[in-house]
Amino acid sequence: MTENSKAPTVCVSLYLDTVYELETAIEEAARSNFQSITIPMVHRRFEREFVEEPLKTAHQCFTRSDLLLTSGQWLNRVICRLSNNVDCDSADGDVRKQGEATMRQEISYAEHLVQTGYVMVRLKSGNCANLARVVGHGLKGILLAEVPMVDLKAAQATWRADVEEDVSVEDPWNWWNNFRSYVDHDTHVKVALEFTADIPKKEEIYRWLGEPVDAIVISSSIFLTNSNNYPVLSKAHQELLVLFHRTLGCHFILKANPEDKRLVHYSDYIKYILKANYVKDPMTGYDDLLEIPLQPLYDNLDSFTYEVFEKDPVKYILYQNAIEQALRDRVPTAELDTRTSIIMVVGGGRGPLVRATINASIKSKRKVKVYVIEKNPNAIVTLSALIRELWRDRNVELISTDMREFEPPEKADILVSELLGSFGDNELSPECLDGAQKHLKPDGISIPCKSTSYLNPVMTTKIYNQIRSLEKSPHAKDRIVTSRYMEGSYVAYLKNVYHIDAPQPLFEFVHPNPAPIIDNSRSACLTFKASLDCVMHGFTGYFDAVLYKDITISIHPYSHTRGLGSWFSMFFPMTEPVQIRRGDEIRVNFWRCVASHKVWYEWNMTAPRQSHIHNVQGRGMPIWK
Amino acid sequence: MTENSKAPTVCVSLYLDTVYELETAIEEAARSNFQSITIPMVHRRFEREFVEEPLKTAHQCFTRSDLLLTSGQWLNRVICRLSNNVDCDSADGDVRKQGEATMRQEISYAEHLVQTGYVMVRLKSGNCANLARVVGHGLKGILLAEVPMVDLKAAQATWRADVEEDVSVEDPWNWWNNFRSYVDHDTHVKVALEFTADIPKKEEIYRWLGEPVDAIVISSSIFLTNSNNYPVLSKAHQELLVLFHRTLGCHFILKANPEDKRLVHYSDYIKYILKANYVKDPMTGYDDLLEIPLQPLYDNLDSFTYEVFEKDPVKYILYQNAIEQALRDRVPTAELDTRTSIIMVVGGGRGPLVRATINASIKSKRKVKVYVIEKNPNAIVTLSALIRELWRDRNVELISTDMREFEPPEKADILVSELLGSFGDNELSPECLDGAQKHLKPDGISIPCKSTSYLNPVMTTKIYNQIRSLEKSPHAKDRIVTSRYMEGSYVAYLKNVYHIDAPQPLFEFVHPNPAPIIDNSRSACLTFKASLDCVMHGFTGYFDAVLYKDITISIHPYSHTRGLGSWFSMFFPMTEPVQIRRGDEIRVNFWRCVASHKVWYEWNMTAPRQSHIHNVQGRGMPIWK
Repeated sequence: MTENSKAPTVCVSLYLDTVYELETAIEEAARSNFQSITIPMVHRRFEREFVEEPLKTAHQCFTRSDLLLTSGQWLNRVICRLSNNVDCDSADGDVRKQGEATMRQEISYAEHLVQTGYVMVRLKSGNCANLARVVGHGLKGILLAEVPMVDLKAAQATWRADVEEDVSVEDPWNWWNNFRSYVDHDTHVKVALEFTADIPKKEEIYRWLGEPVDAIVISSSIFLTNSNNYPVLSKAHQELLVLFHRTLGCHFILKANPEDKRLVHYSDYIKYILKANYVKDPMTGYDDLLEIPLQPLYDNLDSFTYEVFEKDPVKYILYQNAIEQALRDRVPTAELDTRTSIIMVVGGGRGPLVRATINASIKSKRKVKVYVIEKNPNAIVTLSALIRELWRDRNVELISTDMREFEPPEKADILVSELLGSFGDNELSPECLDGAQKHLKPDGISIPCKSTSYLNPVMTTKIYNQIRSLEKSPHAKDRIVTSRYMEGSYVAYLKNVYHIDAPQPLFEFVHPNPAPIIDNSRSACLTFKASLDCVMHGFTGYFDAVLYKDITISIHPYSHTRGLGSWFSMFFPMTEPVQIRRGDEIRVNFWRCVASHKVWYEWNMTAPRQSHIHNVQGRGMPIWK
Repeated sequence: MTENSKAPTVCVSLYLDTVYELETAIEEAARSNFQSITIPMVHRRFEREFVEEPLKTAHQCFTRSDLLLTSGQWLNRVICRLSNNVDCDSADGDVRKQGEATMRQEISYAEHLVQTGYVMVRLKSGNCANLARVVGHGLKGILLAEVPMVDLKAAQATWRADVEEDVSVEDPWNWWNNFRSYVDHDTHVKVALEFTADIPKKEEIYRWLGEPVDAIVISSSIFLTNSNNYPVLSKAHQELLVLFHRTLGCHFILKANPEDKRLVHYSDYIKYILKANYVKDPMTGYDDLLEIPLQPLYDNLDSFTYEVFEKDPVKYILYQNAIEQALRDRVPTAELDTRTSIIMVVGGGRGPLVRATINASIKSKRKVKVYVIEKNPNAIVTLSALIRELWRDRNVELISTDMREFEPPEKADILVSELLGSFGDNELSPECLDGAQKHLKPDGISIPCKSTSYLNPVMTTKIYNQIRSLEKSPHAKDRIVTSRYMEGSYVAYLKNVYHIDAPQPLFEFVHPNPAPIIDNSRSACLTFKASLDCVMHGFTGYFDAVLYKDITISIHPYSHTRGLGSWFSMFFPMTEPVQIRRGDEIRVNFWRCVASHKVWYEWNMTAPRQSHIHNVQGRGMPIWK
């Protein structure tokens, strides 16, 4: 969690249809507080001929020279737009070939100019396979696919009498979905989403939040004029602006008449709205960053990791409250002086739970004897020091061993542990606590006493692409997408995500486990439903846990404990993205499997399509005991 | 084409429900002409308990010892069947866990016994994800998934009054399709298809021909009794038997009462029917074998390849007829003695077209001067020898150069070439002939004068799996399926294939090409329709060509030239198998792309799902000029 109290900088680019003098245009835009200009690569009247001579060779010089700007200016001050008056996917062969040649020439020159910068192309329909193959491969920079939020044709059809009723209403999201599928989910291809006067349904807006939206295009025509004659956005458009910027950190492209005297007001207004609505996210810097889940049972955590977790502002207060409540329940006031409660902290780490126990003991005025069990020899050093120095007068005894093996001299009233992972049981709390619970008195208490995992299907292009790129060489020309990493599970602070349906409970564990034969393997089949066409990349996982009675911790999105920062969501990928149709049932099997030395999850989809079973025998990601 | 005039051996296995003495059972079956027996791994009354003691440890010895037979007998004489009285996919957790433990124990022991031999499991519904993960991974031998051709429940529903009307009619093909999808198209998993009294529709039978059907299960109950009291099959069942054996070389498993006195007659009858209907296929040995297309322009062919092609019994006769007809048309009888036709054989190889030309000249009594152009220095050696020795008195001149560069002393009446590949233009005949056609007289003739490619979508598990395995290590535990080879095109003699729809014409080339600017790039969008649920693995490609007037050669399945053996079909894979529903439109784009040094195809699907564009820029398989 990096310190960053300043509001983020907001970039706005000015969209121009024609430019006479490039450098002047950049300067003028800068005077109106635009950081860059978005310009056509080639003037629209500058049509070229690629087949027949002599026109073919006549137009070698089809646009301006690259020497007009420095390479730094091309990279940072200019977004190059490809022509949109050609049709690479025309049914007419000549039109198509002409379009293809035009686009090839332009994308090649655009990349020559902006290098790793931005090139923009407008999508006009879902019929874009040829366009995709011509402009969407082997990119060095970012290709912004410009798509309106609502198809104007469709919008018109709803209120114009002169437009025929049966105009095919095509959702522009499908244009984008086709385009990105055809370019094989290339990470260099992103969305420039154009806000429209009409705002689509909430669910459709949320779906865009799962896409790699890099820029928002706003036309001056959707601005209103306030009583002081300044341009402002409607409340709904303001909220949209803030939502996209807060979730995805987009930049902006403003379409306006360059003669418009209020140019500076548009860009200032956008920046003003975003600053006014800025809320600091303590997790900034972790957004959509792929992480491998910890295996604290197998690996010894390092001091950086301990430190991050100890800093959680909420978690240990909740633990302390739970221990305090449990002590009060077990020891009546009459026995305050005579009865000492035995508390075992299993997995003591660097002592935060010991601290919580001592605080709970003080607050509740109940005497405690604390056994702290820890297997990590490095944390033992810290704990020994704490006992020697800080807890000298406290009744704390350190046992340096694995909790599944230790033999304490007496039985415990309360067993306290913090072995929960983002998916509840994925750091093997069930296996650990099964071993430790034999040291609990018959009426003893485990804190936590229950954990439940949850799952829901998601569209999250960004995370999916990160996993897919784990082995892909960015320079390889042939397509080598391996499935190796698609069988793992991951942890991420997901923002660029669309939740296809609400989470459902998956597996539950109670502690202590009263079953005569303890079986921690589980299996379940969940059924979800999609309310929109979308692409499913996998499943996000969460957990909630009951610490004691009504004291709970949760990262379930509907009941997330306020301020809790210790756990990000889990993510289980599907090897291939699955195209989902509105109304589809999504059925998934999940298994938790247990063998002598490892635990693992397997998963597969049975509807709307059959997938292979992922992570069979834990081949992709075993959790070692 | 290997010499094999004998009818193939047919293996029939006897399916037994209980076996007292293994060795005796094998001997008795052998006396009735069965090559092996198919037996349950565990007696069905031998239920085991995997959870609760003391039963859990009581049944360590749950079946017979492996020492009863030699390992050779286990491998060749026994097919082990897994229990089918358990349910790994029950909604009841206890039933499911019991089923899972049973299956794990049995598959492990079965593989211990038969090693790389056969294990059989019966599918009973499409709800088989858990069964798939338990028995379908990490196999050393072949797992036969037993599936009936028609679901008995469904069949009953059509004629029994006591069965409710709304019984869900599930096509057993879907059981198999789910199972094989869940096991990730594992090549060790194959079908044991049970013939039923009812025979399904033709199209459904053809669909099974695209699946890896390894064995046919026949029950004695579907046999009829003829007037001599011998068991026989109905005409329809006979045809089915022959069809599957001829196409896939299946073996057979006979279900009968072991006390049935006619046992020997069943196995003899099956063998008799197959022998009586045996037709020798000259291509035996090439069935479903994946080959990389030749690039004769880039690589020099070797003498083995020349020899195979020269052996085609039909091709050069057709060429000879075409040349003869062309000579007759050009030279009227009055000019027989005065006029010599100039014939250029471009790409002479080891001379078969020169031979055809000389024969045509003799038969038509027209004088010819033959220029033979060849770039392969090894074939030049052969041609020089032929000219020196065999064609001494003939007017044959050898030009050792690339046909695109040679400068002949005169123009040709007839240009003869055999540059056609399985897809027509895929060995670059258009590019070659464009270069050579300038040496043709204005009214000159090219043989061939036109070629057309064709395409249709197919299900072909076997070919698909061969491509998929090109990089997969059979011993790797983690799933590494790379897409590298999925962007190539292949050639194969396809038998194990289901054609989802009829072929449609794709690209056409005419020679000589009269266009002022020659453009050999092409693109087209084809739309097919599926009449059944199935899996699409890719597209097969064919060509036909007009040699001269009505003399054509074709490998299009509807017009295949009789006896022509020189070309197998093309195959263009889809990276991921696509689940298709009955009635789905399958829309595909195909491009032929041309650059200065290579030619290549690109392809993608736009419906029912979007696929990425395959072989972009020829990254997977370029055809070098």
